[in-house]
Amino acid sequence: MKTVRNCFIRFVLAALACAVLSTTLQAADPLPSWNEGVAKKSVLQFVASVTKKGSPEFVSSGDRIAVFDNDGTLWAEQPIYFQAFFTFDRVKALAPRHPEWKDRQPFKAVLENDLKALAAAGEKGGAEILMTTHAGMTTEEFEKMVKDWLATAKHPRFNRPFTDLVYQPMLELLAYLRENGFKTYIVSGGGVEFMRPWSEKVYGIPPEQVVGSSIRLKFEMRDSKPVLMRLPEIDFIDDGPGKPVGIQKFIGRRPIAAFGNSDGDLQMLQCTAAGEGRRFMLLVHHTDAEREWAYDRKSPIGRLDKALDEAQRRGWAVVDMKKEWKRIFPFQ
Amino acid sequence: MKTVRNCFIRFVLAALACAVLSTTLQAADPLPSWNEGVAKKSVLQFVASVTKKGSPEFVSSGDRIAVFDNDGTLWAEQPIYFQAFFTFDRVKALAPRHPEWKDRQPFKAVLENDLKALAAAGEKGGAEILMTTHAGMTTEEFEKMVKDWLATAKHPRFNRPFTDLVYQPMLELLAYLRENGFKTYIVSGGGVEFMRPWSEKVYGIPPEQVVGSSIRLKFEMRDSKPVLMRLPEIDFIDDGPGKPVGIQKFIGRRPIAAFGNSDGDLQMLQCTAAGEGRRFMLLVHHTDAEREWAYDRKSPIGRLDKALDEAQRRGWAVVDMKKEWKRIFPFQ
Repeated sequence: MKTVRNCFIRFVLAALACAVLSTTLQAADPLPSWNEGVAKKSVLQFVASVTKKGSPEFVSSGDRIAVFDNDGTLWAEQPIYFQAFFTFDRVKALAPRHPEWKDRQPFKAVLENDLKALAAAGEKGGAEILMTTHAGMTTEEFEKMVKDWLATAKHPRFNRPFTDLVYQPMLELLAYLRENGFKTYIVSGGGVEFMRPWSEKVYGIPPEQVVGSSIRLKFEMRDSKPVLMRLPEIDFIDDGPGKPVGIQKFIGRRPIAAFGNSDGDLQMLQCTAAGEGRRFMLLVHHTDAEREWAYDRKSPIGRLDKALDEAQRRGWAVVDMKKEWKRIFPFQ
Repeated sequence: MKTVRNCFIRFVLAALACAVLSTTLQAADPLPSWNEGVAKKSVLQFVASVTKKGSPEFVSSGDRIAVFDNDGTLWAEQPIYFQAFFTFDRVKALAPRHPEWKDRQPFKAVLENDLKALAAAGEKGGAEILMTTHAGMTTEEFEKMVKDWLATAKHPRFNRPFTDLVYQPMLELLAYLRENGFKTYIVSGGGVEFMRPWSEKVYGIPPEQVVGSSIRLKFEMRDSKPVLMRLPEIDFIDDGPGKPVGIQKFIGRRPIAAFGNSDGDLQMLQCTAAGEGRRFMLLVHHTDAEREWAYDRKSPIGRLDKALDEAQRRGWAVVDMKKEWKRIFPFQ
């Protein structure tokens, strides 16, 4: 009889533990860094609606695709895109091997931190810097460069690693969606191979769920070992009207939720909205100059103008960072 | 005391059910259509080794990426690639709107089933047919064409839907790998949008895990609805040296297992083999003219020559379909 009693006690304890755990889970706020407001409420309602079996808006787990822009949506993008910091640091690292750069634009401008001269070099100058720093090595060598850079580089304003400048409320949102059977993707104008080395560690998004801009790759045998060389040619620009194209190419089905912060995300949100059934579109509006930055319609980086109008017209969620986010960065 | 007894009885029954289920699972052969031979043994050993916690060859679940060629590896590819049947049927369906095709090559050849004239039209003729049948519509319209075709088209030899001509042993292998935490991908020279409409239903592989050749897409607003137009331009050829490129572009990490059947898969297998730790490479060798087809070094479709030499030299698994597969197709 002793065995029976022991088994029974264990059984009751286990049942109790389950009950307690389930109550705790129900009570816990999945988005603690979001103030109670329209945006938070609409996210929670959307997820409840598409995950409730039997609901007319139910979406099966495989079709729960959520896409996130990166720069300005998941991490900061001021005063310039973080990949630009990487690029300029690469120019400086390569400079000793290129003494001619001291007198040659656009490299001279980078070495002298001369933003005016850099702007004057225009798109052509930018492309030259990009190809010099991002091509001519294997994919593995490039991955190492990104990791090495992230390990030491610091953001000039916050004096912290760039991967610290991710938005705490968005980390919570990513985790919350995944707990509810969503597959979360990055769909960014940034370089795909610049994001993949750290996206899983920082966002919980594995490399295969990162869609981004790319340069061409070429298969080669080097010392009888196969490698992929990065060529100085654009392969794909995953920005603006390129984002729905990237989603089709890489995911092959229409997302039911899309998150962005700029006009470069407009078409991605339009495409998401155009599907049948319940949809969720959200824009992050940078309104907090103190804790982060405040910018929208006139910013050269992350301009939010047409998309803001469309969001207001169509009732998409717009998060006012200053009012609706208790915390911006995890370290704050 | 009655409640205690009831609970206990339920508890014991549940425990018993678990024990029985677990024994059944252990005893069941995960690859029943594979004869006991070198190939089957090596697959089982590989999976056991990379999934055993604490084993020096253990691979974490996220890195268990397995890539499969499609034509000739997961489904048949004779007497011509199945996508070619689709293409020719599209030409015939479009012909009434193009009376001029009756006298114009390469369309005339297709309409008259004149394979010799078709071959004479060469690559240029093939590209013209491809672009005429695969471009000029939205991605959604194309998806519908593929689904409609598959619903009625029959393979000329077996008089069955093309999706019946998948290899039962490979279906078992896909399921077995997934049960062991692998993510299974198609990496095919075929059109990605030709495979995605049915890959999940037939193979259990969702659209986002299909890598293939593609034509360019363009975002457009049509009646204020966003659509993606298929343009008559090649975007990416996922064959031969293109396969490792496709893997890097779409998956972003090196597979630990690769399955193919032709020289077009050689570089994919080489790249998989070149990674660190335990790897598994397998070639399907078509040796069964009776139940399927027998072809290798001299076949214009699915030629297996260099890859066969390399497999023998490097000890990759080679499956002799005739000897090692009990069943080829599920219907047999």
